[in-house]
Amino acid sequence: MLKPLKVGIAGLGTVGAGVVKLLAAQAELIAARAGRPVVVTAVSARDRTRERGVKLDGPTWHDDAVALAQDPDVDVVVELIGGAEGKAKALAQAAIAAGKDFVTANKALLAVHGAALARAAEANRVTIAYEAAVAGGIPVVKALREGLAANRVSRVAGILNGTCNYILTVMREEKRDFAEVLAEAQALGYAEADPSFDIDGVDAAHKLAILAGLAFGARIGFESLHIEGIRRVSAIDIAFARELGYRIKLLGIAEQTGAGISLRVHPAMVPERKPIATVDGVFNAVLLEGDFSGPVFLRGRGAGEGPTASAVVADLIDLARGIRVPVWGMAESALAQAHIAPITELNGAYFLRLSVVDQPGVLADVTAILRDHGISLESMLQHGRAPGEAVPIVLVTHETHEAAVNAALARIAALPAVLEPPALIRIEPQ
Amino acid sequence: MLKPLKVGIAGLGTVGAGVVKLLAAQAELIAARAGRPVVVTAVSARDRTRERGVKLDGPTWHDDAVALAQDPDVDVVVELIGGAEGKAKALAQAAIAAGKDFVTANKALLAVHGAALARAAEANRVTIAYEAAVAGGIPVVKALREGLAANRVSRVAGILNGTCNYILTVMREEKRDFAEVLAEAQALGYAEADPSFDIDGVDAAHKLAILAGLAFGARIGFESLHIEGIRRVSAIDIAFARELGYRIKLLGIAEQTGAGISLRVHPAMVPERKPIATVDGVFNAVLLEGDFSGPVFLRGRGAGEGPTASAVVADLIDLARGIRVPVWGMAESALAQAHIAPITELNGAYFLRLSVVDQPGVLADVTAILRDHGISLESMLQHGRAPGEAVPIVLVTHETHEAAVNAALARIAALPAVLEPPALIRIEPQ
Repeated sequence: MLKPLKVGIAGLGTVGAGVVKLLAAQAELIAARAGRPVVVTAVSARDRTRERGVKLDGPTWHDDAVALAQDPDVDVVVELIGGAEGKAKALAQAAIAAGKDFVTANKALLAVHGAALARAAEANRVTIAYEAAVAGGIPVVKALREGLAANRVSRVAGILNGTCNYILTVMREEKRDFAEVLAEAQALGYAEADPSFDIDGVDAAHKLAILAGLAFGARIGFESLHIEGIRRVSAIDIAFARELGYRIKLLGIAEQTGAGISLRVHPAMVPERKPIATVDGVFNAVLLEGDFSGPVFLRGRGAGEGPTASAVVADLIDLARGIRVPVWGMAESALAQAHIAPITELNGAYFLRLSVVDQPGVLADVTAILRDHGISLESMLQHGRAPGEAVPIVLVTHETHEAAVNAALARIAALPAVLEPPALIRIEPQ
Repeated sequence: MLKPLKVGIAGLGTVGAGVVKLLAAQAELIAARAGRPVVVTAVSARDRTRERGVKLDGPTWHDDAVALAQDPDVDVVVELIGGAEGKAKALAQAAIAAGKDFVTANKALLAVHGAALARAAEANRVTIAYEAAVAGGIPVVKALREGLAANRVSRVAGILNGTCNYILTVMREEKRDFAEVLAEAQALGYAEADPSFDIDGVDAAHKLAILAGLAFGARIGFESLHIEGIRRVSAIDIAFARELGYRIKLLGIAEQTGAGISLRVHPAMVPERKPIATVDGVFNAVLLEGDFSGPVFLRGRGAGEGPTASAVVADLIDLARGIRVPVWGMAESALAQAHIAPITELNGAYFLRLSVVDQPGVLADVTAILRDHGISLESMLQHGRAPGEAVPIVLVTHETHEAAVNAALARIAALPAVLEPPALIRIEPQ
């Protein structure tokens, strides 16, 4: 057996402690699979005294994570601190500069600084591994970067945030409103005290940017993503979706289009029989479309101690086995500069919901505006009557252009009989 | 850029020609991802003159596949001949003996001779790669051998044969009988002229044996698998399954049980809302249960030119990148000798269908026998009445022991009012 792979772990929160636990619990199995033991030789965290449920008397304790990266008794630095800047970024740079391989679960760091880190890693002949950064226990980075490496990938679509999927699932199943379900999810620990990172779609967008970079072999500017969260998804839209045979999911979608790469995170209506529509609760899922493989769909736990630790340790076993893959699937210099299509260039079908005064002529006004913008309708729903009062009208368009929809909605919103800003949800055929 | 990886391909049927096409179509992309070109330098097939829709004027032609393995201008031998014995086996041995890496889509060869080939490969310091042998375009070998390498896997369950899944799907959707749908599938080219390898479950069993070896780090004796095909699945059972909220799928299941490893291919009733129940047509799917990752579900195209070529070329890109993983995920000497639990040791719920004379007392006799063997019922269905004629009775048991079910069915079958051998379908909770 070869000499052990020596691991330094920075960040001992839930995931960090989970990695320590996993490496201890399966030490023998991992040594057999990796061909050598994988041992934790150093750790770093803010608080030495906190009870973490793991034995930490063996490894060297570093108060400073950067010092851990420079510890000669560390071959691989595992970063589980989080955040795109600050300590995590400094640690990444220090590890790479010290010639150490770098394993991370940090999606923000990679989405924002991935290209620069890849250049540094190549210059220093080290590897950056980040299976845990996307979709937790699902080995989707490996599937895309290695399993589908023979394919041109035309599209990646996924449920990439378990908190949002949990909230949308409970809203649908229990016919409840967003604010109430969010509050409950926070009480249960499924959502953070400050939930904006999740529910505003930023976390999903970080993961999508990583998948897009891998899928298309391109440098993705994170600021070019179109990001909408789930705050404005209402119980009434979920009910209409059900009636129309759809489910509302927060999707991250990266696809090659005639106008460039479309990169977007937003609530979407998905036909209820499609695999991604059936993924409920905290589960994540990703659909990859390769030109030779056809569609490959993966589903599993996207977060939590066990799934994330499983992904981190898979990366460590890869390194122990000597598996080294370019950070973005090819040399950084070979990556294309992504041309991102603005969201207004999107072509697709749309669900539109208006709140209007129930009076004669409103629908004629609305449909005349849609006609003016070349938008044709697949279906219209107007349930119940309440003369003189507010009623919802739902319109489902055929495939059209988002810029046309925006222009039409601006005019529709200005009609005197239209009471609230119209709701728009994109329909994704999958 | 490094020097090219030189590939010799033996077998130029649909998949072999597909690999040549893929390598030509994506040559630049593959070179970027692999860090070096991947080029076909030699080929071998029975018939030089056949039109294959690909250009083959560059590579050296070998009439003898073994000579291709010895060609000094070949780094990697790709075997696409098929079959556990004969030419394919001779080629594998010749390639390994010549110090060449070996890539194959041959599930039979690996299921039957996998341990011996792994020993030979280790002795000669070469790699055997076989992503294409299981589930076509789904990178499940990589998911299991690398992606979930940190996990103890307790269970693998999959739809591993697209022909069977297609037939069962059409039987359900069109309420038609097996023989008729099989004949149609043959006419459409979805089933072979001699379909027994597929419909008797042998093909799925080969794939299951490979997945089990990987999942459990064990040498699997192929002859120890319990194998039933789909010939006896009837339209009436599919109708009852629907009524009870199940779908009938041909599953391959490998799981750790108290009695050893349970390894079996058979039709199974799966709750209709479970992911694997929703996989229809020619698609394949695999569910992997890791102790840290939780359930990981993969779905995609299990066969065909494109998906299989995608998997073969993924293996070639791995080799070009220098990725080398032990054949069975660990050294052959570290594999356990699998203790296989006989099917009679299975614990589970059962769907039983009897054809009985509709007369008083029959159900009392049947339930008395079940009671004698300690089997309790979850539900019973007897639709319609036809006094003195044959009617079906469906019984769904609670969890029980297969040996008890067999003993009870032997007695039930001997009752004068029972007209046909009872039908038995195992219920799998997933």
